[in-house]
Amino acid sequence: MRRPSVLTLCVLALAVLAIRTGADQPAKPEEYGRIFEGIREAGLTRERAFALLERIASAGPRLTGSPQAAAAVEISRKLMEELGLDRVHTEAVEVGRWVRGRVAAAEVVATSSGTAVPLAVCALGGSVGTPIAGLTAPVVEVRSLDRVAALGPAVRGKIVFFNRPMDRRNTDPFAAYSGAADQRVGGASAAARHGAVAVLVRSLTFREDRNPHTGVLRYEPGVPRIPAAAISTADADRLSALLEEGRDVAVALSLDCRDTGTASSANVVGEITGSERPQEIVLIGGHLDSWDLSVGAHDDAAGCAAALEAVALLRDLGLRPRRTIRAVLFMDEEFGGTGGRAYAAARQRRGERHLVAAESDRGGFVPTGLAFGGGDPKALDRILPYAGLFRPFGVAAIVPGGGGVDVAPLIEEGAVPAAVLVNAQAYFDVHHSALDIVSSVHPRELELQAIILAGLAYILAQEGI
Amino acid sequence: MRRPSVLTLCVLALAVLAIRTGADQPAKPEEYGRIFEGIREAGLTRERAFALLERIASAGPRLTGSPQAAAAVEISRKLMEELGLDRVHTEAVEVGRWVRGRVAAAEVVATSSGTAVPLAVCALGGSVGTPIAGLTAPVVEVRSLDRVAALGPAVRGKIVFFNRPMDRRNTDPFAAYSGAADQRVGGASAAARHGAVAVLVRSLTFREDRNPHTGVLRYEPGVPRIPAAAISTADADRLSALLEEGRDVAVALSLDCRDTGTASSANVVGEITGSERPQEIVLIGGHLDSWDLSVGAHDDAAGCAAALEAVALLRDLGLRPRRTIRAVLFMDEEFGGTGGRAYAAARQRRGERHLVAAESDRGGFVPTGLAFGGGDPKALDRILPYAGLFRPFGVAAIVPGGGGVDVAPLIEEGAVPAAVLVNAQAYFDVHHSALDIVSSVHPRELELQAIILAGLAYILAQEGI
Repeated sequence: MRRPSVLTLCVLALAVLAIRTGADQPAKPEEYGRIFEGIREAGLTRERAFALLERIASAGPRLTGSPQAAAAVEISRKLMEELGLDRVHTEAVEVGRWVRGRVAAAEVVATSSGTAVPLAVCALGGSVGTPIAGLTAPVVEVRSLDRVAALGPAVRGKIVFFNRPMDRRNTDPFAAYSGAADQRVGGASAAARHGAVAVLVRSLTFREDRNPHTGVLRYEPGVPRIPAAAISTADADRLSALLEEGRDVAVALSLDCRDTGTASSANVVGEITGSERPQEIVLIGGHLDSWDLSVGAHDDAAGCAAALEAVALLRDLGLRPRRTIRAVLFMDEEFGGTGGRAYAAARQRRGERHLVAAESDRGGFVPTGLAFGGGDPKALDRILPYAGLFRPFGVAAIVPGGGGVDVAPLIEEGAVPAAVLVNAQAYFDVHHSALDIVSSVHPRELELQAIILAGLAYILAQEGI
Repeated sequence: MRRPSVLTLCVLALAVLAIRTGADQPAKPEEYGRIFEGIREAGLTRERAFALLERIASAGPRLTGSPQAAAAVEISRKLMEELGLDRVHTEAVEVGRWVRGRVAAAEVVATSSGTAVPLAVCALGGSVGTPIAGLTAPVVEVRSLDRVAALGPAVRGKIVFFNRPMDRRNTDPFAAYSGAADQRVGGASAAARHGAVAVLVRSLTFREDRNPHTGVLRYEPGVPRIPAAAISTADADRLSALLEEGRDVAVALSLDCRDTGTASSANVVGEITGSERPQEIVLIGGHLDSWDLSVGAHDDAAGCAAALEAVALLRDLGLRPRRTIRAVLFMDEEFGGTGGRAYAAARQRRGERHLVAAESDRGGFVPTGLAFGGGDPKALDRILPYAGLFRPFGVAAIVPGGGGVDVAPLIEEGAVPAAVLVNAQAYFDVHHSALDIVSSVHPRELELQAIILAGLAYILAQEGI
């Protein structure tokens, strides 16, 4: 790794001095220009964020509670120490441990031609398994939870097949995802309430292929828990075509996934301790756990790597801001955020005040904007004067927003939310599937995210909010 | 392929009527909203631009003057007819025909260890070959054309190795490319002027790999023509390390590329003829030729596909604007634009007036902005009121700019330049190399380009400029 040149460090020292001279009045945006220059040069020259991502991904698929997740905690702690962060430590979190098992098989057993048709499926996260011998039942296709309610007793004894696609006409992939995810999250209980024996849910992706995309489901209290599997888009279309032929179609489904109780895990924490107000914290973070069909490169090794690299860039340049900049790699975002809640509730938090909480969990793609302040226009006003500094890195607009599962508890307590917005057109191609691999992340695109986070965190840690 | 629904067509008919009612005063931006809706729905539902790209790429690598380029002309003409464009035809262009040959070999023959080191190289476009037995000479490494001039006689009888990388600290990949391309374009003549026998030029990419990236060179009149090859970045670094050890390093180079005179080729032209002022033309286009190390998916099958799809989307929706919207697929951009010059100079152009010329040649990546009007702020003012319509498709800003090799002659005659700006962080990973393959283009990202071009062309063809 190349270190910044002596000249770069000298110029930066002068820039820091210039900013400090202002003492209590806020520094002008142009005074941060040289800092951003230093971050840009160091970041784009080395592209270290990608190397950090590779290190995290080397633990393997990091399902909450798994040995791989435990390995990732240890790798990340070590990485933070190597990068020279202050006060590196882990904070224990008690998490659930669901295991996928070894069997996820489905086939159409009764078709007009009499030929069995194998279907590419995977268990949804949190699903119960089927009986060991599997279960076989006729299939009913629906496009909404409401439709299941309307069918009522007609789904008794059936497998309900939720097949509403993400709306590809929507230019915003996250909006299209949100518009279809209710089937995956709530489909099982909606169907079980009327006596269905299992559900198949169309994978949440725009692409037509044979990769099932997993993700968490929620069983409603008091409703029987039935097995739930994601089916690849290509197989969903095939199953739908068979049903359209009008004949009875039965599917045999076998899953041996199951809950195995709880496990001990941890969040990983490191920082640059603030020089004047160390108890005031600008937090940047991602989640260390992932789904288990791949190494979760975009979701969310990328977010963890971007946060680590942001703090490391500032550290390498010898910058120590007035307030603390802290990187937190949260455990268990995917099953609902026990890590985020444990962090916010920890005894260590007494006396700490989180000014800002920036969560990176939108994939390691090229930045397009910055979301800040949630719905509070006053918070946005604090960052808008610095917009020009972020523009070269792809931040075409700074808009209200930010937040996420991990930082939600901090935001409830008053932290201002922030997030780097990215080009997500390809995100759901790989999201929660076997395709979310290291080579699907572009080193320069990821580094630009880290640079933006570094600049944002530094300004906020200097200026407060 | 799914057609737009009857409802969509009815709504569009009403929208067109609303715009027409305004007669001579310009339509308000919001009146175009429904048109954009129709384009968005049809475009994102079908993602046909990618299918068009696949058809063009099916011709193979389309080096100017090659049989594959001729096949691409025929495929494109047929595509335009299938898409229902008006006045589909080809326009003859006389082009040069350079052939790569079958031999491109280089190895370090004298190292400290005595072991030959093979180097991954390819001939630069337009290069002369070496003698059949190859040539062997000591290597001199330089980082600039100026350095060769300073060395002067010291390079006599040597192979000059240009090894200045693209500046990866630059956030704009095109700027980094421009800052290093002089070595490829002018290195051979700069070295030959002082008696060098060949040049090796570091490939123009940020990535470290073993793929050489080709591209055109220019021999200066009156200077001996010497062989010129691109060397992969990994091999450039290896060669540089060997030279740094301080011992003599000689390289043996064999290339059997050569010029073979001229060939007959063509531009491919189709349009939606304007209903009121058909001789006033809004041109959108890309270049049909490519380099020959791959099928040129990003460069520039993507640009051709986006232009075709833009016109086809408008055609499918039954829109016939006041002025003509024309798609032109130019031949021979890569060797300097004979196609663009032939188009502008053709007899058919008499009586035609090109209002706007939009060239798509920045890769099939996700849009980030729109460049318009060259340096003329008044032209920009004409399109800024419509900015909100383009924003959902990724156009975060509309900035001065546009232009390109193919449309330069039209712009000289007064056409207003335009171009969709895209995220180019990964462009030079594949540019002019074996990596520029169909699977490196994302269907949704390419379609967004086509949608923006369709909307832009429609507004301009309705409103004039």
